[in-house]
Amino acid sequence: MVIVMKPGAREEDLREVIARVEALGYQAHVIRGTTRSVVAAVGDERGKARLQALEALAGVQSVVPILQPFKLASRETRAARTVVRVGSLEIGGDRLHVMAGPCSVESEEQLLTVARAVREAGATILRGGAFKPRTSPYAFQGLAEDGLKLLAAAREATGLKVVTEVLNPRDLDVVARYTDILQVGARNVQNFALLKEVGEIGKPVLLKRGMSTTIQEYLMSAEYILSAGNTNVILCERGIRTFETATRFTLDLNAVPVLQKLTHLPIIVDPSHGTGHWEYVPALAKAAVAVGADGLMIEVHPKPEEALSDGIQSLKPARFAHLMSDLQTVAKAVGRYL
Amino acid sequence: MVIVMKPGAREEDLREVIARVEALGYQAHVIRGTTRSVVAAVGDERGKARLQALEALAGVQSVVPILQPFKLASRETRAARTVVRVGSLEIGGDRLHVMAGPCSVESEEQLLTVARAVREAGATILRGGAFKPRTSPYAFQGLAEDGLKLLAAAREATGLKVVTEVLNPRDLDVVARYTDILQVGARNVQNFALLKEVGEIGKPVLLKRGMSTTIQEYLMSAEYILSAGNTNVILCERGIRTFETATRFTLDLNAVPVLQKLTHLPIIVDPSHGTGHWEYVPALAKAAVAVGADGLMIEVHPKPEEALSDGIQSLKPARFAHLMSDLQTVAKAVGRYL
Amino acid sequence: MVIVMKPGAREEDLREVIARVEALGYQAHVIRGTTRSVVAAVGDERGKARLQALEALAGVQSVVPILQPFKLASRETRAARTVVRVGSLEIGGDRLHVMAGPCSVESEEQLLTVARAVREAGATILRGGAFKPRTSPYAFQGLAEDGLKLLAAAREATGLKVVTEVLNPRDLDVVARYTDILQVGARNVQNFALLKEVGEIGKPVLLKRGMSTTIQEYLMSAEYILSAGNTNVILCERGIRTFETATRFTLDLNAVPVLQKLTHLPIIVDPSHGTGHWEYVPALAKAAVAVGADGLMIEVHPKPEEALSDGIQSLKPARFAHLMSDLQTVAKAVGRYL
Amino acid sequence: MVIVMKPGAREEDLREVIARVEALGYQAHVIRGTTRSVVAAVGDERGKARLQALEALAGVQSVVPILQPFKLASRETRAARTVVRVGSLEIGGDRLHVMAGPCSVESEEQLLTVARAVREAGATILRGGAFKPRTSPYAFQGLAEDGLKLLAAAREATGLKVVTEVLNPRDLDVVARYTDILQVGARNVQNFALLKEVGEIGKPVLLKRGMSTTIQEYLMSAEYILSAGNTNVILCERGIRTFETATRFTLDLNAVPVLQKLTHLPIIVDPSHGTGHWEYVPALAKAAVAVGADGLMIEVHPKPEEALSDGIQSLKPARFAHLMSDLQTVAKAVGRYL
Repeated sequence: MVIVMKPGAREEDLREVIARVEALGYQAHVIRGTTRSVVAAVGDERGKARLQALEALAGVQSVVPILQPFKLASRETRAARTVVRVGSLEIGGDRLHVMAGPCSVESEEQLLTVARAVREAGATILRGGAFKPRTSPYAFQGLAEDGLKLLAAAREATGLKVVTEVLNPRDLDVVARYTDILQVGARNVQNFALLKEVGEIGKPVLLKRGMSTTIQEYLMSAEYILSAGNTNVILCERGIRTFETATRFTLDLNAVPVLQKLTHLPIIVDPSHGTGHWEYVPALAKAAVAVGADGLMIEVHPKPEEALSDGIQSLKPARFAHLMSDLQTVAKAVGRYL
Repeated sequence: MVIVMKPGAREEDLREVIARVEALGYQAHVIRGTTRSVVAAVGDERGKARLQALEALAGVQSVVPILQPFKLASRETRAARTVVRVGSLEIGGDRLHVMAGPCSVESEEQLLTVARAVREAGATILRGGAFKPRTSPYAFQGLAEDGLKLLAAAREATGLKVVTEVLNPRDLDVVARYTDILQVGARNVQNFALLKEVGEIGKPVLLKRGMSTTIQEYLMSAEYILSAGNTNVILCERGIRTFETATRFTLDLNAVPVLQKLTHLPIIVDPSHGTGHWEYVPALAKAAVAVGADGLMIEVHPKPEEALSDGIQSLKPARFAHLMSDLQTVAKAVGRYL
Repeated sequence: MVIVMKPGAREEDLREVIARVEALGYQAHVIRGTTRSVVAAVGDERGKARLQALEALAGVQSVVPILQPFKLASRETRAARTVVRVGSLEIGGDRLHVMAGPCSVESEEQLLTVARAVREAGATILRGGAFKPRTSPYAFQGLAEDGLKLLAAAREATGLKVVTEVLNPRDLDVVARYTDILQVGARNVQNFALLKEVGEIGKPVLLKRGMSTTIQEYLMSAEYILSAGNTNVILCERGIRTFETATRFTLDLNAVPVLQKLTHLPIIVDPSHGTGHWEYVPALAKAAVAVGADGLMIEVHPKPEEALSDGIQSLKPARFAHLMSDLQTVAKAVGRYL
Repeated sequence: MVIVMKPGAREEDLREVIARVEALGYQAHVIRGTTRSVVAAVGDERGKARLQALEALAGVQSVVPILQPFKLASRETRAARTVVRVGSLEIGGDRLHVMAGPCSVESEEQLLTVARAVREAGATILRGGAFKPRTSPYAFQGLAEDGLKLLAAAREATGLKVVTEVLNPRDLDVVARYTDILQVGARNVQNFALLKEVGEIGKPVLLKRGMSTTIQEYLMSAEYILSAGNTNVILCERGIRTFETATRFTLDLNAVPVLQKLTHLPIIVDPSHGTGHWEYVPALAKAAVAVGADGLMIEVHPKPEEALSDGIQSLKPARFAHLMSDLQTVAKAVGRYL
């Protein structure tokens, strides 16, 4: 943190800042400029949020953070890339993993049809929502535990791993019983109650970036899970909210290299939610592989026009199979494989 | 919903759209333009989300929503403004209510000092967090039930009503036991699990707008609570996330008249979180009253520079008292009172 | 500027940074932390953009600006508030000025009708576009010099001052000949060619904030005009672009106190463009006065439903007169008058 | 356009809307729903902006645009992809073109060094700014005509084509004399005065998307140039402004497939400005090729740490050469070549 004094600040204002910086356990370095002084507070960044309150002091103009506030998620703490193991699968290694399936689990037939199709096309993990976070209370809310059972049955039938979302801490045990990867959705990225409880379970967690979460905040949310003892965190860029309405969200592929610079955690990309329109999914999926993502999450539905949720953004199985073939070529071009 | 066909769409594509619109229970009106046709689907908007999946059909170019998807929150359902009663207080009437207090409950002395000061200055409701949603897991997380007890004691001592946030559905019972108004914070505005459970309790709910929630989504979140049977919902604009970094968020005062046009629910404004800097709070508080808000939520701390959270944006008691006096004048100028 | 070194940076990396900082004319202060060093560059902020290129060096992690890069626009350079004189009017004093009129000058009758009505209601300055920046090339582009002549005639007839927009440096002379205040519109806020030429003319300039201009960039645009020798700059907040679509833009009233902290220039607010809907204009106009603006710009049209541009956001003369009366009351409540 | 009536609108309100729609030259189709009526206006979209003013009428709730307002830029007008010819080069064909060079032309030696290096690596077009749009008036503003002469000399020496920016309509002739492609920068995307004049010149135009320009507005800006008679427009995505600050802008690769759906114009991508950090440029450049862009614009500087502008985001020649080799592989994977 750098505490910037006002131009006319008095010596005693400066002394008070120094005293408070030191009282909070940091070293204070004073730099006297031509028009004002600044005080640099040196020490562990993790607790520095409290220093920001010094902006309330008389002689202080602003408090500027210099370093990143996360620790366990940082590449500075752990230089080697983390590989998250989901049974025999390794997420974050040379092989890319594709998580595919319907937005919502709707019926046994729907789920099995999709599961078989995506496995055939090369996906390794089945996605499907049993508890659905829907903007409208009048929209389909998911099959709940019945949906989880269908997911488990589809895993049995296909050998795919399963990822599904948990919305309520109260449902954590039942969801964890059926799934291989617990998904925390975009709308819960700062649901700290849920993050803490998910952190106490050993299962891999797919933590989606929120629609307006900065990368720094996103890594702080990952830090909640990591600091609770669960190191199996997979990040997922799924589109941010911007002024542009031609796409449902703006898939932020910039986040992939930025996250790779800052953190050791694996990063996958969800172009289905990111764009919100199935016709843009193939182009963005290829771009996600080229930009360096460790995998993809893609919505696939046998009859998108009849889907109970997110039909607009779902690929039909045949299109998905075609895309998977294209993705293999792109993956190879950047030294990875599917 | 208007379903826009592609310029070259065939008659059979159009017939399929019509058939599906009707199968979902809507009337289909076809309008044939010079370059393309459009199909208007007429009927109850609430379930129309499913119509959007028709964009997956071959001849369809886009699906454009025309009406608002909320019902119970709408002024069209209920023209009269809702007044939420909190004991003897009426929120949404001619009298404005100010909810003031520290960001976090830190100690008995801190809380009582603030509570007495804000009551003296004219506030009617005490705010204070016992369960704190903090971006960093290393930041102060709140005193939990001990904090709730201190809030109850302060209510006892001052006669102020109490509003405090609930983060976890598991804590709902204990929080409801101590508080007069349950706050659902900005980060949980689309935590639908929490919204549903809060909706099943009779207590007034202060539902903060999320930092990237559109007004339409925000009213859909209110609709979750209303449709679960709880009609005592107070809305609160607290700043949205934009590109501008000079303020912590961008307090969106436009939301007040827009919400007043769309909904009958009362609306308060939180300039403390909205701006993130105490020195901007008075100007925006006055503007919030002038724009027509039904009340304010303002952070007050006896020693902001020592606050365990949000010291930057907290007013000292003397400044708050001065502001309250200014607010009375502005309220009078717009036909309200404090 | 603070140059943050990477954790593993070598002594020679640090020495290179110091050497380059000094070569660019700044003093270099090194602070050695537990995991890394940082170098503070002390000196005039105005030329410091070049320091940011040091991020390209091997041992450097990031370069963090600490101070504001504008100078002439800053309150640190000039503590007293600037009052811009437009004939006998003083913008930035205790009296608020309202600039009102149609979006576009359409005809003599239209303009005179509005001019008389707004003068009657208390406006002191007539707005009206002769050169119109329209998103579509197929939309009405303005009456050009004929429009300027009508503005001058309306000034003659009413005694109102005139403000109108200039789009093209080639038109600067002709616009300056007819108008009292030159308006640089939101879309030209970083049209530096235009800013430089406008800066070389003595006339007052109304510089609108761009829809995605940060406050810092906005003041840098003002600095272009100031540094070219023209000190008569009036700022105008007119709405920024955010994710919210319920309003055309998001009028950012936070900008008013932030600008008042940073600069001595007067600030007016345009709620017509800021909200894009006439029914929200009165509420936001009152809020703008309460927040501390030095004036308002409001669109008024005798028949909004027939306007050639921006009819949606124009008030009818009677509504405007009613609003002006309300604004007087609010102005008085905050110690100003109309 | 769909004009949505208020629930309680009277028959005469409806009749007035119909009359006005027809008076403006459109057919009016009335659809009567359960709670309200809507009027669809059928006809050429280009002039429909005026219909929006109907929102000012008593019985009207809102006016919702249904179709896109651009025509010449639309794929519906011209299904085949446009190929822009720059001498013997074809932009928009199977071969991707890379425009590379320094942000600013600084000296003959700097420019020639870069020009030779980028040609060697496979670039076909030299970029370099002679007139520079700088946020700060105190930053380097470019060498003006001297810079143009150096660009022409570099073209002579290397055979590369040249692209450079024009800021002021007054400079249009001199810039056009020296360059092969006229660049209109992001900050001038809605500088309609400049767009009109550029449209009257036959030269190819590289029109950059503005930092907060929606895709629809962007195509309307292209429409200005097209409707003035110049069909040689190349689009360029270069990053939009969002809440995220980890990158300078958010490169919006979603725009590429969206633009390809809507328009026939070729689209290139500028990852240097889009990310603002050289270390993210290679990943995003590869993604841009994979997503389907027709080319790239990349900043290259022999000594980024000494650059007079944008050193942070410039690649060194060796890194650029390495990237070009990678891009060839990715291009091949998506059926294109460099």
